[in-house]
Amino acid sequence: MGALQLTLADEGRVLQLAWPDGRRHRYHALWLRDNASDAATRSPGNGQRLITLLDIPAETHVAEAQAGVDGHSVRLRFEPEGRWIDFSATWLARHAYDTPHAPRAPGWTNPDVQRWDAASMQARIPSANWSEVSTSRAALGRWLAAVRRFGFAVMIGAPTEPGTLCRVAELFGYVRETNYGRWFEVRAEVNPSNLAYTNLGLQAHTDNPYRDPVPTLQILACLRNTVEGGESVVVDGFTVAERLRTQDARGFELLARHPARFEYAGSAGVRLSSKRPMIELGPDGELLAVRFNNRSAAAITDVPFDDMPAYYAACRRFAEGVEDRALAVTFKLAPGELFIVDNTRVLHARKAFSGSGERWLQGCYPDKDGLLSTLAAIEEEEAAGAAAR
Amino acid sequence: MGALQLTLADEGRVLQLAWPDGRRHRYHALWLRDNASDAATRSPGNGQRLITLLDIPAETHVAEAQAGVDGHSVRLRFEPEGRWIDFSATWLARHAYDTPHAPRAPGWTNPDVQRWDAASMQARIPSANWSEVSTSRAALGRWLAAVRRFGFAVMIGAPTEPGTLCRVAELFGYVRETNYGRWFEVRAEVNPSNLAYTNLGLQAHTDNPYRDPVPTLQILACLRNTVEGGESVVVDGFTVAERLRTQDARGFELLARHPARFEYAGSAGVRLSSKRPMIELGPDGELLAVRFNNRSAAAITDVPFDDMPAYYAACRRFAEGVEDRALAVTFKLAPGELFIVDNTRVLHARKAFSGSGERWLQGCYPDKDGLLSTLAAIEEEEAAGAAAR
Repeated sequence: MGALQLTLADEGRVLQLAWPDGRRHRYHALWLRDNASDAATRSPGNGQRLITLLDIPAETHVAEAQAGVDGHSVRLRFEPEGRWIDFSATWLARHAYDTPHAPRAPGWTNPDVQRWDAASMQARIPSANWSEVSTSRAALGRWLAAVRRFGFAVMIGAPTEPGTLCRVAELFGYVRETNYGRWFEVRAEVNPSNLAYTNLGLQAHTDNPYRDPVPTLQILACLRNTVEGGESVVVDGFTVAERLRTQDARGFELLARHPARFEYAGSAGVRLSSKRPMIELGPDGELLAVRFNNRSAAAITDVPFDDMPAYYAACRRFAEGVEDRALAVTFKLAPGELFIVDNTRVLHARKAFSGSGERWLQGCYPDKDGLLSTLAAIEEEEAAGAAAR
Repeated sequence: MGALQLTLADEGRVLQLAWPDGRRHRYHALWLRDNASDAATRSPGNGQRLITLLDIPAETHVAEAQAGVDGHSVRLRFEPEGRWIDFSATWLARHAYDTPHAPRAPGWTNPDVQRWDAASMQARIPSANWSEVSTSRAALGRWLAAVRRFGFAVMIGAPTEPGTLCRVAELFGYVRETNYGRWFEVRAEVNPSNLAYTNLGLQAHTDNPYRDPVPTLQILACLRNTVEGGESVVVDGFTVAERLRTQDARGFELLARHPARFEYAGSAGVRLSSKRPMIELGPDGELLAVRFNNRSAAAITDVPFDDMPAYYAACRRFAEGVEDRALAVTFKLAPGELFIVDNTRVLHARKAFSGSGERWLQGCYPDKDGLLSTLAAIEEEEAAGAAAR
């Protein structure tokens, strides 16, 4: 294998690295300078950048480039600042942007996401025991990784004291309080402020699409369950969206390209409303979220008249996917059992239940940023531990 | 004036309303049926929809249409269900979607948003007194309406007890707890986990762009302030974005069409990261949010090599707007004073301050859904009160 080779081009505005394995990547001098990690650019204590882009001359170029003798670093002299700054070759390789940007179909998902249906998931629902997850960081990491990958997971063996669901959230993050409280009771009520508080079946849905931002996670924990029926159902909204795209690409695009409207006004003093699409794509077409909730869907007014029939046809197809038994994973929670869903992706439903007996669940909305942050920290600890062994 | 005229077309799949003022709007039978508000379709108690789209036959059409004798309602017979359902004419007029969809330039904002700069804002900073806002629902409504319109507001005369900022949040909504706590202390520290906890100046920024969803509101409250400097600065990010669009439409598009990356790893166990654009547009081009923070901006890797120089040039222009004194509104908080910013829109900065004296602020992140909900409820109460008078 040859050594790392450095070539300057475009009067030092571009640096080309030829890696020993034959790959070549170009980097702009301005990008390199902006991403320097020396102590004058980034705080050694907390990693935050100490300078702004306006502190970097617009005419920045690399005047001289040297490969470290170890092959793991690159040393660059930036002008007009006249400063030598070292870069990690590994870091540069990992952050290469001079790569073929293959066109991806709208609705692509990142590699951490694995879509599922009943056939692939019913027999292997990700599940963990409270006693493990609350005492072992590795077990917690596995449970959180399942949520990142599949958008839901089950927990068994949890205490049945009210509020336990918040202790689960606090294993990895923080509960977001809303007009429903820090947590809320899900059981049949007289004069319910929300249809969730009845014994009606509920079509699979994401929670609170009338809120912006929506709750990104939901935990539903069972305290008592002696009714007939009342099973929990989860459906991968990303599978539903992908199926719509393959069956009806124009319908997929209509749901992604036009905002929907959602409203909730079930309690005095609460008038929530939002304007967001049913299928949310990032600017690069990545599938970021689905919103689907028949109870709070408001009048669609942002779709041109001529597109409305096709928009409604797409909604119907999406709803058919949501109701398709081939996509639905079903389980019945016993006291001490709970499940968590990624509310930006996985829809949940409940089957109707009998009037006799008691079904008592509690729900809360933690946020996904904390979950993903804790998971990343655990993975970093494990990688550091493995490297030390 | 003539009466409301109803015409069926396309075999009852379309209803046309000709209003007395000459406007004409068409509505699809399916859309009408879906938006019915009769007691079998919507819960009279909480307004939630009781049926799903799959409960509505795909071949739904209007077989018969009658105008109410009062001119305020429309009565429709839907087939094949064979049901008569009444609609409010006012509601139909307000939700008409058969309207010219004039092409709007990407980055348009809704009518509730009014952009500002120093000239239009420095002399009329929206401000209210704690004693008014905490006791008068009308005064609270005015203060919240300023936040909706301008993206920030000041409050004076608040208690200087720690945690008062959460009482302010609870006037309209809920605090979102994060890894920084339910609220956090902003004062100079040794070995700070965040550069906010130093006496350095901070470039105008939005908070926590490495969090997804970002905090949608921030309150910063002053408990003590005897330093030289340390003034607070706010900049309307929507004005900065609009200026970029008019100066450099391609640059605006590059910032909107490519995700940026943000990271924060300043504390043990915290590894936050996000992938979202600096300028976030809705699918219909509405400007929804800006993200700008030099401290936590990570390497940009989603921009093709050939576009990177123009992307960086656009970032630089955006930063120049952020730093432009003509856009900056400055004030110095005294103890008992605070300000709130819409963190999806308005950037805030702090000027450097002296090492002598003490500057003690507290910050927290309430959410905007609660603010807008409470404001809408107050406006509804006021409209009902006015109607009753």
